[in-house]
Amino acid sequence: MDKQTVGKRILSANEQFAQGNAELLAAHNLVCLNMISSPGSGKTTLLARTITDMRGRLRIGVIEGDLRTDLDAQRIRATQAPAVQIETKGSCHLSAEQVHGALGQLPLADLDMVIIENVGNLVCPASFALGESAKIVVLSVAEGDDKPAKYPSIFARSAALLINKIDLLAAEGLADFDTDRVRTDASLLNRSIEIFPLSARTGQGMESWYDWLAARVRS
Amino acid sequence: MDKQTVGKRILSANEQFAQGNAELLAAHNLVCLNMISSPGSGKTTLLARTITDMRGRLRIGVIEGDLRTDLDAQRIRATQAPAVQIETKGSCHLSAEQVHGALGQLPLADLDMVIIENVGNLVCPASFALGESAKIVVLSVAEGDDKPAKYPSIFARSAALLINKIDLLAAEGLADFDTDRVRTDASLLNRSIEIFPLSARTGQGMESWYDWLAARVRS
Repeated sequence: MDKQTVGKRILSANEQFAQGNAELLAAHNLVCLNMISSPGSGKTTLLARTITDMRGRLRIGVIEGDLRTDLDAQRIRATQAPAVQIETKGSCHLSAEQVHGALGQLPLADLDMVIIENVGNLVCPASFALGESAKIVVLSVAEGDDKPAKYPSIFARSAALLINKIDLLAAEGLADFDTDRVRTDASLLNRSIEIFPLSARTGQGMESWYDWLAARVRS
Repeated sequence: MDKQTVGKRILSANEQFAQGNAELLAAHNLVCLNMISSPGSGKTTLLARTITDMRGRLRIGVIEGDLRTDLDAQRIRATQAPAVQIETKGSCHLSAEQVHGALGQLPLADLDMVIIENVGNLVCPASFALGESAKIVVLSVAEGDDKPAKYPSIFARSAALLINKIDLLAAEGLADFDTDRVRTDASLLNRSIEIFPLSARTGQGMESWYDWLAARVRS
């Protein structure tokens, strides 16, 4: 068996679990977002604030993926939302089988939406379907404005791009971050991508993101 | 053939090329550093400044790994240093075979050191030897102080940790970054890791890093 054949068989097993997850989520009328970014883009802070601000409007359950520790799930549970931690023990992305196990631990009947925070990695998670309705990519302004050009896969496949930490643009060291370059490059890769510049820390720009989230549940 | 066996065979082919690279580098009395970080930690800026500031003291050649584009090699060539770009076409790490090809394009006889800037990814590159003398991990303060705990492999395997963008610690949004937490967590994983807080943009802290680099060539 050559490498390519083995690769196809592994992908196919993942695809089967992804399909099962999609069916389970559909049976519960749940929207599921697969959130992908580099380490440290602020995904967990973004999720915690989203859950808190959307209380009463959207019931969100969370699946946290990390190589090690359950630090992120602890931060989400502090918001009172249900959260399941998956420790990948060194693997660079979540698998659909791991998500299948985690979905079984969430109170699906009491939720409107499941958000999966994938392992911090802008490359590998883009290639593994988990059964999600859509992928979301998060880019912190501290990472630089060349990232859509240099890491195109995830920008090409995401329904939305959250440009996080825009409050840091006031720092002298980040004055050359060009939001328009990010918009242009991401839109070239993906004409339908929705782009939300925001700061999960200060709250700036979050309302447009919340409206987009709420619209996905209604539609 | 099960997945584990295939994994071993792939690793073994990579290890063979890594061994060949190490021998080629040793034959030219060259130190080789494999620089690993998340996207946007500032590796290329760091390299460009290091090359410029070390001119006359250390002759550095660079191998740039990116999924797409040769933007980084262009930035290095602007410093007059020789640079070879490897486009991985979507792969999440450099392979020893790719580095083997790139070494053949560098003027090895005219260099003291080769620095490989790996694909921006804090996970996968840690597992693939390239024939380097040592790994270097770069962490931007914007990524947060919990990264050694959450992504332990690369911190456990690196000879040095560069904590970059410390000029941004003056920004209100990064005031809670705890450099001591990074030091403690990284040192728990790796008692011999050398830690350099610095800013490649302002130059703060760079001299200690330069001394460390120069000492590796002398030793």
